[in-house]
Amino acid sequence: MHIWRVNTRKQDLKVEPVPASWEHLGGRGLISRILLDEVPGTCDPLGKYNELVFAPGLLVGHMLSSCDRISVGGKSPLTGGIKESNAGGRTGLHLAYLGIKALIIEDQPAGDSYFVLHVSKEGVRFDQVNQLPGLGVYESAKLLLKLYGNKVAIALIGPGGEMGFASAGILNLDKDAVPSRINARGGLGALMGSKKLKAIVINNQGGVKPPIAHLDQFRQAQKAFNKSLMAHPQTRVYAEYGTAGMTRMSNGFGGLPTRNFSSGQFEGAEKISGEYMRELLLSRAGESNPTHACMVGCTIRCSNIFGDKDGQNVVSPLEYETIGLLGANLGIDDLDMIARLNWEVNDLGLDSIEIGAAMGIVCEAGMIDFGDSTGALALLKEIRKGSVLGRLLGQGAEVTGRVLGVKRIPVVKGQAMSAYDPRAIKGTGVTYATSPQGADHTCGLTIRAKVDHLDPCGQAQLSRNSQISNAGYDTLGACIFAGFGFAGKPETIPDLLNARFDWQVGSDILESLGRECLALEREFNRRAGFTPANDRLPEWMLTEPLPPHNAVFDVSEEDLDGVFDW
Amino acid sequence: MHIWRVNTRKQDLKVEPVPASWEHLGGRGLISRILLDEVPGTCDPLGKYNELVFAPGLLVGHMLSSCDRISVGGKSPLTGGIKESNAGGRTGLHLAYLGIKALIIEDQPAGDSYFVLHVSKEGVRFDQVNQLPGLGVYESAKLLLKLYGNKVAIALIGPGGEMGFASAGILNLDKDAVPSRINARGGLGALMGSKKLKAIVINNQGGVKPPIAHLDQFRQAQKAFNKSLMAHPQTRVYAEYGTAGMTRMSNGFGGLPTRNFSSGQFEGAEKISGEYMRELLLSRAGESNPTHACMVGCTIRCSNIFGDKDGQNVVSPLEYETIGLLGANLGIDDLDMIARLNWEVNDLGLDSIEIGAAMGIVCEAGMIDFGDSTGALALLKEIRKGSVLGRLLGQGAEVTGRVLGVKRIPVVKGQAMSAYDPRAIKGTGVTYATSPQGADHTCGLTIRAKVDHLDPCGQAQLSRNSQISNAGYDTLGACIFAGFGFAGKPETIPDLLNARFDWQVGSDILESLGRECLALEREFNRRAGFTPANDRLPEWMLTEPLPPHNAVFDVSEEDLDGVFDW
Repeated sequence: MHIWRVNTRKQDLKVEPVPASWEHLGGRGLISRILLDEVPGTCDPLGKYNELVFAPGLLVGHMLSSCDRISVGGKSPLTGGIKESNAGGRTGLHLAYLGIKALIIEDQPAGDSYFVLHVSKEGVRFDQVNQLPGLGVYESAKLLLKLYGNKVAIALIGPGGEMGFASAGILNLDKDAVPSRINARGGLGALMGSKKLKAIVINNQGGVKPPIAHLDQFRQAQKAFNKSLMAHPQTRVYAEYGTAGMTRMSNGFGGLPTRNFSSGQFEGAEKISGEYMRELLLSRAGESNPTHACMVGCTIRCSNIFGDKDGQNVVSPLEYETIGLLGANLGIDDLDMIARLNWEVNDLGLDSIEIGAAMGIVCEAGMIDFGDSTGALALLKEIRKGSVLGRLLGQGAEVTGRVLGVKRIPVVKGQAMSAYDPRAIKGTGVTYATSPQGADHTCGLTIRAKVDHLDPCGQAQLSRNSQISNAGYDTLGACIFAGFGFAGKPETIPDLLNARFDWQVGSDILESLGRECLALEREFNRRAGFTPANDRLPEWMLTEPLPPHNAVFDVSEEDLDGVFDW
Repeated sequence: MHIWRVNTRKQDLKVEPVPASWEHLGGRGLISRILLDEVPGTCDPLGKYNELVFAPGLLVGHMLSSCDRISVGGKSPLTGGIKESNAGGRTGLHLAYLGIKALIIEDQPAGDSYFVLHVSKEGVRFDQVNQLPGLGVYESAKLLLKLYGNKVAIALIGPGGEMGFASAGILNLDKDAVPSRINARGGLGALMGSKKLKAIVINNQGGVKPPIAHLDQFRQAQKAFNKSLMAHPQTRVYAEYGTAGMTRMSNGFGGLPTRNFSSGQFEGAEKISGEYMRELLLSRAGESNPTHACMVGCTIRCSNIFGDKDGQNVVSPLEYETIGLLGANLGIDDLDMIARLNWEVNDLGLDSIEIGAAMGIVCEAGMIDFGDSTGALALLKEIRKGSVLGRLLGQGAEVTGRVLGVKRIPVVKGQAMSAYDPRAIKGTGVTYATSPQGADHTCGLTIRAKVDHLDPCGQAQLSRNSQISNAGYDTLGACIFAGFGFAGKPETIPDLLNARFDWQVGSDILESLGRECLALEREFNRRAGFTPANDRLPEWMLTEPLPPHNAVFDVSEEDLDGVFDW
């Protein structure tokens, strides 16, 4: 495999060998290494010194269930620190087939024109497609598929990324050619926009499946992994309810963010639960299962399609985080409206967590009422118009809160919290506080651990372990949910890697990759100016009790500062 | 003297002895000591753990020319670091007469009501004045003077401070009872608003002049200082032109921020020069001198009164920084309009530097044209209305630039630069970058040094010396311009202190106070999470040449990081 280095100013490509210190890494771990080696910590995230890196995980390319994810990274326009955000869909697989270990996008052009970066066996090409700028994600994808054919992979930005919003993400086509898999967090869409790329189209024609050193061993390990994955009860839950299966659990723990994180339980929780949604969708579609896979080969198939009462698709997928932030957090208990809001957010190319948190603040500021879904939809129209209010929301929860004078701002390192209130799920609070990525459940969710989530003791250790594993999975290109399979058969991880690469790694490989990744990320952030002062939850969460448990976040600063003392 | 500690939640006062380690400090130095001892570096600037501190400088209380300044400080809502901002007027003198070495305002009330804190020999009282909330600074001052009499000192906030704007300052009555002397920078008005104080009224009736240990020696030193001050040519310049005398000099060096820091020379500079203004005002008023003193006893008398063509006062004073930021930086060359803009900014209780920089960004974003003074006035009306755009501007240049997607944002540590472009006056650029206060000329202006301001070499040393002296002067309560007198007779500083306090300090006292103050401030910032990464100018100033010299800021990072390696 090779490193493909694209300069957006010169519009050229250099294909380079993989440096020795990068070889054993992929996905998130590789991104952290590249950024540390090449990007100055203090650079302007939207300036010419920042890089946008696409890196498939180590295991990508073999349609291993839930293991074909694409990591995208750069210095975050939202947090000012390191950022990696991974997604399913086609992008990882296509890059791997072209032998691209990392696609590094550098520099920025002087002009205002947007380009489509076309990547294929022949190299790269910068196409100008005049109809694209300003176009929403869904129309853009449709147009691109028409131009480039149905089989390409596409990573693209919406109007939000073009407007430089720190809440803008990058959308990837799923296996059914729907631009639904999003590298959502941290403003990577704005970073892509600053490189003047509206889309990256990857045509893997003529590409080949990455070579496997020992095919038999690989197949054997794959089989064991699949079996373990299918045997895990949670796999069934996700297959049936999608991630929306979390609503009841989170609400049950009193950790469902409700009305701008002022309560951890929502009286409308049942109406936005995965169980309710499944019944609703089954009754509407009359089909057996409303969920499907986002990546070829995934056996979990957690991605749902939300259809309206006339059988028309509204959005796909409708995830728990979106339900939490655009639903309970706004006091909205109507799945049809949440789905419409979600479609708009996707079409704008934004992170539904960040935008949901920002809109919660707008509600608290009294500009619209909690529960007013029409008002929420109108706010999204403001974003599309690029009005001052829309641009404000586009910058995310922290800036919105500062400007509107709201004190209850649920962010760490400038990034909005996911749909788990850290006062009720304290281990996840430790993750929010200490993750180099800013508040993000995917860096170390602890809600499944069999502990008292309200007890501050032991949460730091729990978060540490979870952060290490997740950084490891993100380096492999494995979906968090693949972890259900790997947890039952941990030896399949070294087995798969050794078979794929002819390595001799041992049983500690997941942990060692995770630790290396986190250490690199923390070093990048140190250079960017981060200190333990950044590893804190907002002050109000330490003093304002969260109903119904009336808990505050009381994990000690010593515990927080000890998370990475390993 | 004593420490007066006021708790705004309990509405009570504790009068405490001065701790030993605070005794030798006053003004800015004392504030840094207090904040380091009492305020957690990571606290929410608008939360209950922050403190608002008023501390007269060490020499305050004797109507020593230009030496009765009041320092106000706290953790800054704008920069997130330590903040001290000093002003002339009556406040320092009145506090000193009551024997108050520092007035520490703590905690915050639960309710929404605003109070007037009345400070007198009898202690403190919280008055509720229903007409005050929402009222502009000038009307508020008028009302308060009617209620409390003409002789009190008043420090008050405008609507901007009430709305929590990070650009809000605190206005102090000058000797003529005009609320014109502003602790402008860093959002201290928002901090005062967060304590629910609209005004602090200080009645020094029954108070006494602070005791002088050796009166004869004091008078002698005072005489020598005065003589030196009056002999300095710059004193005359300020007496005639006010600080507006800087316009020609700054423009001459190519350092006058023009059209959002895109040029260092302004074609309309002559029409906004001090010389032009003096002629204009003389022709209008027919008087001999349009300047006056802001503090009793000041012999420089740099404060002007800008009257319109019908002889009506528009604003007082009209300072160089305001002319630079609300004039050249907006492409406006009409002093009458700049004066009107200034009146509005003052009445809103805001920092004209921060607001001017924010409006420059609005111009660059294309929302109004450069040179459109009517449009600029309309923007200030938006601030008064508290519209989303107005609130955005109120948060200052950095947030405005982020939201409007403008890359050319002239800030350090979130605070807007003063009216000296650091690419043309590089020593001042070093001060902007490295001062614990954020970009601020009063922390170490270097424009008067006889050096090549475009040469990056030696600027760090120049800035260091200037930062030390200024921190020293700010600790004495001396106006920067008092430095003209002290520079000619440096022995008058220890002489005055020794006579006043019966101390035996030596000739290094100014430097030693300055160094102590800076070290304390840097330690506070360290705890707040600041690192060398925060001691940088924005990236675009390192790459975008500034006409007419086409200079970039090229002082090395080693030099910047060495400023405080002493």
